[in-house]
Amino acid sequence: MLIIPTLDDVRRAAERIHGRAHRTPVMTCATIDARAGCRVFMKCENLQKVGAFKFRGACNAVYSLSDDEARRGVVCHSSGNHAQALALAARMRGIEAHIVMPRTAPRLEQDAVAGYGGKITLCEPTLQSRETTQAEIIKRTGAIEIHPFNNPRIIAGQGTATLELLTDYPDLDVVIAPVGGGGLLSGTSIAATGLKPSIRVIAAEPSGADDAARSLASGRIIPSQSPKTIADGLLTSLCDLTFEVIRANVEQIVTVSEEAIVDAMRFVWERAKIIIEPSAAVGVAALWEGKLDLRGQRVGIILCGGNVDLAKLPWQT
Amino acid sequence: MLIIPTLDDVRRAAERIHGRAHRTPVMTCATIDARAGCRVFMKCENLQKVGAFKFRGACNAVYSLSDDEARRGVVCHSSGNHAQALALAARMRGIEAHIVMPRTAPRLEQDAVAGYGGKITLCEPTLQSRETTQAEIIKRTGAIEIHPFNNPRIIAGQGTATLELLTDYPDLDVVIAPVGGGGLLSGTSIAATGLKPSIRVIAAEPSGADDAARSLASGRIIPSQSPKTIADGLLTSLCDLTFEVIRANVEQIVTVSEEAIVDAMRFVWERAKIIIEPSAAVGVAALWEGKLDLRGQRVGIILCGGNVDLAKLPWQT
Repeated sequence: MLIIPTLDDVRRAAERIHGRAHRTPVMTCATIDARAGCRVFMKCENLQKVGAFKFRGACNAVYSLSDDEARRGVVCHSSGNHAQALALAARMRGIEAHIVMPRTAPRLEQDAVAGYGGKITLCEPTLQSRETTQAEIIKRTGAIEIHPFNNPRIIAGQGTATLELLTDYPDLDVVIAPVGGGGLLSGTSIAATGLKPSIRVIAAEPSGADDAARSLASGRIIPSQSPKTIADGLLTSLCDLTFEVIRANVEQIVTVSEEAIVDAMRFVWERAKIIIEPSAAVGVAALWEGKLDLRGQRVGIILCGGNVDLAKLPWQT
Repeated sequence: MLIIPTLDDVRRAAERIHGRAHRTPVMTCATIDARAGCRVFMKCENLQKVGAFKFRGACNAVYSLSDDEARRGVVCHSSGNHAQALALAARMRGIEAHIVMPRTAPRLEQDAVAGYGGKITLCEPTLQSRETTQAEIIKRTGAIEIHPFNNPRIIAGQGTATLELLTDYPDLDVVIAPVGGGGLLSGTSIAATGLKPSIRVIAAEPSGADDAARSLASGRIIPSQSPKTIADGLLTSLCDLTFEVIRANVEQIVTVSEEAIVDAMRFVWERAKIIIEPSAAVGVAALWEGKLDLRGQRVGIILCGGNVDLAKLPWQT
């Protein structure tokens, strides 16, 4: 059975995270508009706590727990932004967050999780090792698993970015979000179509990790085999829950090349003067890949995050 | 005779540039506050048009011209942000901007000026050649010189950033701005002390280009001989006008090392997720150089710009 969140769940999530997560700004940039041929409204989740929208979902999930549940702590296996987000949300509530990370995870990411107070358990860099390690922690501590996207509370939390965006700019014609596991896209689509049934919800996906595009085209989940993209937040594949939501609400998935991602990322850094990660640039690249006709439209776009290793930028060889 | 602008001039400048320059956002960042030990309010002139506060002054100067004056066009010798700002302001008013640049100016800067419609005249990389070339253009076209900082209209325009900052956050205790030629600092200090006589105005300057600190200490202008700093917007020395204003209004000039500048720049990129140029990082570095006691204070800081060559970042060797 799938528990699919609704606009009301997104609204409740917004109340729950109010004052805990940032209400991020919406930015515009004349040069981006000129290149895209439409009016672009960038919802800056790169300016969210921990530098990514992930904090919205994690915060909603952590604060949805009863006191009895919360006392047991939370756990996830992730080396990315979700791990940092869960660690911070748990610390804010005063509970433990166990983070299972592969021992190959970059030092920068391990430090970030530890910096937010997460208790790291290293494992082998295989899915099986991650899951076994997590299961052991759950058995030992009773911690509650907070999956990064296969979780209705997470999805409802991610939807709050779009709730805010459409509150500020109700006359948007289109909203674009990147898709990896589909948590952000699901939340975005639930909030957007719930608030405004006429709105078009479009996803952006790297060609090198295009499981969502292939899954939607074939009507069943086709996980990525060995996805490869610089947009490392989008390597994961859809799950049952996100597939159902996306199938119901999303008009189109636009795939973009690696070159286009790097180009869009640099363009935003240079012209909008904000730092976005490659996964956020995927959405921007979709604006001008020539696969969409957005001329004259008002287009919201979720810039999902800004976590980048500044010592290794993709335009430097 | 020195024509010193007042708070009223800043107010008139604000009316003049309204709808032409951006009203930039003010950002906060918990990690910066924690490191600085005070509450920091960053006025984001890196998000201003042309990526720098310079557009405020240039816009005010260009739109202050009578129609007869404007018809003659404007001219400056500059290879930095002022050149771009003047070019854009002139284009907006539909007049010519002549920009004298040394032939050694980076391609990136030449392209930027040309992109805003500026008419570039290259000269030798000496002050004499710049001035001779500019004089020839003035003789030929009648163009009006808009100096980057030795100009009351420019100073009044730069002050509008602080007018906005203190309108949004009237309870600031301190405002910090970087100092090069002193246009931004002069405008900042006129607006700040005019609006709130009790406010402390503090300047930040690279140790490698510390003419303002030495000039203030000795009571007379001591120009930099061969200044050297990564903060290339702050290489210029004070002029009579800015020296007088700064001497009257600025409490202290804090000098910061090159290492501190690079460290602060990277810290802001990593934690606030916005792109600032080294000159803007000078002000941030001053927050935690240990030369100021700002504990518990509410501190406004002018992030002067965000123009950086992304292919050459200072933390990469």
